[in-house]
Amino acid sequence: MDELRVALAERSYPIRIGAALIDEPAHFAATVKGRAAIVTSDRIAPLLLARLRATLQHARVPAIEILLPDGEAATTWETLNLVYNALLAERCDRGTTLIALGGGVVGDITGFAAATYQRGIPFIQVPTTLLAQVDSSVGGKTAINHPLGKNMIGAFYQPVLVLADTDTLATLPEREFRAGVAEVVKYGFIYDAVFLEWLENHLDALMRREPRALAHAIRRSCEIKAEIVAQDERESGVRAWLNLGHTFGHAIEAGLGYGQWLHGEAVAAGMVLAAELSVSMGLLQPAEARRVRDLVTRAGLPARAPDLGAARYLELMRVDKKAQGGAIRYVLLKRLGEACLDAVPDDTVSALLVRLTRA
Amino acid sequence: MDELRVALAERSYPIRIGAALIDEPAHFAATVKGRAAIVTSDRIAPLLLARLRATLQHARVPAIEILLPDGEAATTWETLNLVYNALLAERCDRGTTLIALGGGVVGDITGFAAATYQRGIPFIQVPTTLLAQVDSSVGGKTAINHPLGKNMIGAFYQPVLVLADTDTLATLPEREFRAGVAEVVKYGFIYDAVFLEWLENHLDALMRREPRALAHAIRRSCEIKAEIVAQDERESGVRAWLNLGHTFGHAIEAGLGYGQWLHGEAVAAGMVLAAELSVSMGLLQPAEARRVRDLVTRAGLPARAPDLGAARYLELMRVDKKAQGGAIRYVLLKRLGEACLDAVPDDTVSALLVRLTRA
Repeated sequence: MDELRVALAERSYPIRIGAALIDEPAHFAATVKGRAAIVTSDRIAPLLLARLRATLQHARVPAIEILLPDGEAATTWETLNLVYNALLAERCDRGTTLIALGGGVVGDITGFAAATYQRGIPFIQVPTTLLAQVDSSVGGKTAINHPLGKNMIGAFYQPVLVLADTDTLATLPEREFRAGVAEVVKYGFIYDAVFLEWLENHLDALMRREPRALAHAIRRSCEIKAEIVAQDERESGVRAWLNLGHTFGHAIEAGLGYGQWLHGEAVAAGMVLAAELSVSMGLLQPAEARRVRDLVTRAGLPARAPDLGAARYLELMRVDKKAQGGAIRYVLLKRLGEACLDAVPDDTVSALLVRLTRA
Repeated sequence: MDELRVALAERSYPIRIGAALIDEPAHFAATVKGRAAIVTSDRIAPLLLARLRATLQHARVPAIEILLPDGEAATTWETLNLVYNALLAERCDRGTTLIALGGGVVGDITGFAAATYQRGIPFIQVPTTLLAQVDSSVGGKTAINHPLGKNMIGAFYQPVLVLADTDTLATLPEREFRAGVAEVVKYGFIYDAVFLEWLENHLDALMRREPRALAHAIRRSCEIKAEIVAQDERESGVRAWLNLGHTFGHAIEAGLGYGQWLHGEAVAAGMVLAAELSVSMGLLQPAEARRVRDLVTRAGLPARAPDLGAARYLELMRVDKKAQGGAIRYVLLKRLGEACLDAVPDDTVSALLVRLTRA
């Protein structure tokens, strides 16, 4: 087992990474003071709930269980209320620790429930997707959707412990696993050329989900995100780098209709566009952009974005960024391992989209 | 104008106390960075909204207005959602500052909306009841009710500014004003014998709502609450002192049916019982308990609790404290100006209730 300590603002907590962590009672015995409430989804419960239940029994931690419907569409007030209802029906007090067993949706809802139940109770994250392990483990973002906007209601709230158990990834569908790899390679592109090289050398082991390769990739991704988030608490603005490929990616998701491409797939194609745009802007060498494209392709991710028409792309990207104030600022690459943020003339973006998207 | 600085945990903010503060554009011009959203209630809007609107116009702060239904029964998710809906419909971003213009209910909902809209936006409190000025201004408690429990969903979240405008109390119904005075005298009983003496000497001016008496009473109440809350961040447990009279008070409210007695009225009768109980336990002199009773009476508050039957009182108090683990711990007075927390045999409490409650 590997341990990484995330120290942000007022609170610090460990991220433990390794195989079979959810089978070790010590993690829970040492962290849960009173009762536990496991929050999980219809999809994850048949795969992992019995194992976690047995571990808590060994740890002598009394636990209730709360099942939520699966999927992004379930990230609503109604689903959140299932958690509140269960906690109140069982008369859970502030000594109760929530355990989020699942992917991003379960983590988001459970985190927000923990932030707001009786003005805040502890929660443990057990992310069961690669995306949740490398993205949601750091940063303390919790949220639910509102009918008028995604992730509009939420809080910053840190877990007391994250257990990134590489075993739980074994049952992840291949397409979802690949989508998680998109976020992993992103950390190499924006922040760490050494990690990028490691990924180029170990991508096959990673795609075979070998525990050692997984553990390193998860650890380094969480470390990089923690460093970036900590820097941004000092207002450096570097947090925006985490959105490499996301401006194009959101346009792809919205343009095709949400759910057609997975978020990670759209981000992958978006990162290739961002790299090529960086070449157009004279920042990156063509050979470097090729390394971005090659790694994305080797990970089984789409390197070519769909042809929505350049005008439609620009329109969608403008809506996405409206809140930040008008002009679209792109995350670009200065070199492999370092990003930057810049405005780009619409003509340049259009020319790129005409050249690189696929009908 | 008087200013008190509250420094808690990560954030500090000023409480400004005085007359006609809501007419001064400078408070808002200096604090609101982007747009403002005034949240107020059906009851307060006709009394104060036009004044605040004019002030914001002078300050050149663009503002939207959000009206909520009045009253404790409105402290629900549905009412909170009126705030979210309006903010989203107007495309308010993180640069928006919420302004809570109203009593405790408006403050609770607005504070929780600020804590959770886009993971946190700034809010200004303009409390318009004495209770909200001396109680909600300090401590950062925000909450909504859940059908299964009061104040069960919420967050700790600090305002960026509190404006306690003594003018706004002019329109407060007499009964509500008195209920606020109950909390003011409480601060004297539990923490500050000098303030208690000041209250005994200036109660008539305070009851006539003379601005100077009001300003001193509000300032000293907020100071005491801030000191107690700050001490409790160091785990001294002193925060429980703020509940003097509340254990009996909650039993009175629940026993008579919520809404029969105002919270402050129930707390007033509860403080008299707590003082007499302190005499029974050999902590307080009978003459000191008489001073508690006299001040409560002079403030036009009920000094005698209703006769619910001693057994019913004990039952209700046990339910109220269930979350804290079984035995009822009472806030007692060691002397005037210092409280303590202790368990008391049921027999002693019963004997007191038989002797002092009124059929």
